[in-house]
Amino acid sequence: MAETTRYDQAARQLKLLSQALESGRLGPVRRLVNTLTPAEIGDLLESLPLEQRLIVWGLVDAEDDGEVLVHVGDEVRESLIRDMDPEELVAAADTLDIDDLADLVEDLPGHLVDEVLKSMDRENRERLEQVLSYDEDTAGRLMNPDLVTVRADVTVDVVLRYLRMRGELPTNTNHVYVVSRRHQYLGRVPLATLVTADPDAPINRVMDTEVAPIRAETTSEDVAKHFADHDLISAPVVDENNVLLGRITVDDVVDVIREEAEETVKSLAGLSADEELFTPAARAMRRRAIWLGVNLLTAFVAASVIGQFEAALEEIVALAVLMPIVASMGGNAGLQAMTLTVRGLALGQLAGGNIRVLLSKELRVGLMNGALWAVVVASAALLWFGNPLISAAIGGAMVINLFLAALAGVLVPVTLQRMKIDPAIAGSIVVTTVTDVMGFFSFLGLGTLLLLR
Amino acid sequence: MAETTRYDQAARQLKLLSQALESGRLGPVRRLVNTLTPAEIGDLLESLPLEQRLIVWGLVDAEDDGEVLVHVGDEVRESLIRDMDPEELVAAADTLDIDDLADLVEDLPGHLVDEVLKSMDRENRERLEQVLSYDEDTAGRLMNPDLVTVRADVTVDVVLRYLRMRGELPTNTNHVYVVSRRHQYLGRVPLATLVTADPDAPINRVMDTEVAPIRAETTSEDVAKHFADHDLISAPVVDENNVLLGRITVDDVVDVIREEAEETVKSLAGLSADEELFTPAARAMRRRAIWLGVNLLTAFVAASVIGQFEAALEEIVALAVLMPIVASMGGNAGLQAMTLTVRGLALGQLAGGNIRVLLSKELRVGLMNGALWAVVVASAALLWFGNPLISAAIGGAMVINLFLAALAGVLVPVTLQRMKIDPAIAGSIVVTTVTDVMGFFSFLGLGTLLLLR
Repeated sequence: MAETTRYDQAARQLKLLSQALESGRLGPVRRLVNTLTPAEIGDLLESLPLEQRLIVWGLVDAEDDGEVLVHVGDEVRESLIRDMDPEELVAAADTLDIDDLADLVEDLPGHLVDEVLKSMDRENRERLEQVLSYDEDTAGRLMNPDLVTVRADVTVDVVLRYLRMRGELPTNTNHVYVVSRRHQYLGRVPLATLVTADPDAPINRVMDTEVAPIRAETTSEDVAKHFADHDLISAPVVDENNVLLGRITVDDVVDVIREEAEETVKSLAGLSADEELFTPAARAMRRRAIWLGVNLLTAFVAASVIGQFEAALEEIVALAVLMPIVASMGGNAGLQAMTLTVRGLALGQLAGGNIRVLLSKELRVGLMNGALWAVVVASAALLWFGNPLISAAIGGAMVINLFLAALAGVLVPVTLQRMKIDPAIAGSIVVTTVTDVMGFFSFLGLGTLLLLR
Repeated sequence: MAETTRYDQAARQLKLLSQALESGRLGPVRRLVNTLTPAEIGDLLESLPLEQRLIVWGLVDAEDDGEVLVHVGDEVRESLIRDMDPEELVAAADTLDIDDLADLVEDLPGHLVDEVLKSMDRENRERLEQVLSYDEDTAGRLMNPDLVTVRADVTVDVVLRYLRMRGELPTNTNHVYVVSRRHQYLGRVPLATLVTADPDAPINRVMDTEVAPIRAETTSEDVAKHFADHDLISAPVVDENNVLLGRITVDDVVDVIREEAEETVKSLAGLSADEELFTPAARAMRRRAIWLGVNLLTAFVAASVIGQFEAALEEIVALAVLMPIVASMGGNAGLQAMTLTVRGLALGQLAGGNIRVLLSKELRVGLMNGALWAVVVASAALLWFGNPLISAAIGGAMVINLFLAALAGVLVPVTLQRMKIDPAIAGSIVVTTVTDVMGFFSFLGLGTLLLLR
């Protein structure tokens, strides 16, 4: 971690920039900003509070506006769009590829969408409308409809001459796509093959038919898995009649994977996927309140369990002092087992017989860790309170609770998944409720049995 | 979630397979396994307990062995390698590209590495040794040294004729790389340009110099950010003298991003990055014990705070019953603020002035949520115990603890980062210790002040 990373660089630039902004000298800010790529400018705008964000946004080169809008999260995007004139927006939209444009159009007010559509030629308008006809987070939305198609019965040489005549090819063109008379997908030919194959060979002899086309309704998540499973760099997209609609390149998939990872991390912590660094306080508070409210309910459930043991607590105050320890250890052990199970479920690696095997393994881990920490915690409690019965109670409760934590850590996410509830979001709250309740119950229960006679 | 996803498919195949395995009929298993891609077989092997894993491994086509080994995690890989003959391993290594081979060689016993090296021709051996000379998780390791280089002063036509003469190009060749006499990187030409440009144009007129080459020592993490920032599909890799060493394609970067995401999720839950679904119980137990041990220490700190209020707890048992509520709410609110801060830090979006702005926003969120839940929890406590002073204590403690949770949620990760400690690993344990301690202290303290006079 000692060397300078690109992230350190980003942080350093940000510091320079805030200093320049605070001093009010916008010249250096403009120069700094316009050395960055659109994605970097996007990161930067997301890291600025609203007021400074709009100042910097005004300094970005107009030709980068479109790309920058594509690279920021929904909330920041809205704040930037609100700051732009209709003409600026139409001009920005003009610089984008169809797939990126589709992404942006969703967030524009209706009358502006019409203006953007009007400014396009018929072919591109139809393509945009096609892309927009698919749901967000599907292959149809990720795809770029701009590609080169050829027929199967022509020769390599004819295709090469066609390409030369055509001139510039769409961004990141690495294949020509082979289609039938009715525009159905037949295969594709890498440019690397075109330039090395026998010029007289017919296209259907050199085309690659190994990569199965992706259906336009496939979810983005499945597209990402498909790319990873087949080590793809690009893939064709077709409709239900196998008609070729476009291609997806892996750089779009990278964004999907980054967003998925971001969402998992956020949902494990009870944050909504939309929450950004500078979401206004009132909005952030409302979103987080839901999670806190659910947590409060479960905390009351745990408290009501404690309430059952008022007699024991009144008599032996050491029980109250030690009681959070068992619950806290159970919570942590349960989350470890749950995280492993959630990942296995998400990757389709858990089904049928091996859930039993996982459960038996986790129960053994739980018993072993339970035994280890029971000895440690019982010894510590003995030193503190000098009462072997209290030690016995906390040691016994530790074994019980880490065993139950393992049980809940595996079975709760498996059950939630069967009930079609996302285990990454709901799992941690259910598991910690189980471990809190059982932690208090087992410790106070054993304490009552052993100490109150 | 109602439609069938590729993950469901994976789970279904897994179920069929376990049934076939249990019935002992290996014919169907072999047929099923060999319809899968190496990456899919890798996923499958990771999802099987050791015994079944080795049965299936024996059924995989020998020609896929190498690719499958590249696609599994370290622990599973070791188990598979232990099961193979030296000849099988050398044959498997033979099928791999240099970058994948480098990945695998690390896990082979020394004498086998020698055999693999001996089985290669001199050029490839030198390339492999070059790749191996870079640290794991750097660009030098990710790169594939197999690429096509040309000189700047030849014409497009000459290059096209050279390619045709050369025949088959390395996997995923989409550019030819332009180098000086001393093999220094000058630029690259997309095949799409080669096939459309004027055949008489010299290469240095059509080459693309926009993509900056990546230095071989760059960390994989920075490579991933660089690809995302520049929307790259591939990039050249050079040494400190700008000598071209290889190229990285984005499919390698996708694996880096997936692994990073996996590690973040695991480290937030206190799992080691190596832990897999079927890590043997004893090993899993030892790894997780460290995290649980740290947690036990912090739980004792919290318990010792409670111990300071024995007098109050003896007198008013309701304090013991309600006390976990404040701590639990603080822990959740703190983790929300912390997760947001950790993400901002990881992306280099937090530096200098905007940390102050974030802190002030989070404190406002904390106060607002504190006020809301203070009212709710105070009312509930009043209904339960009928004592307005207890209600006042828990309400006051809730505001204090959610305020402190916001403070800790921002400042703890920022401070850990400055101390060069990974905030994703250490952050949650520090933040929840703060919120536990302050939750118990504020509630029991207020309770003592208000109720014991």
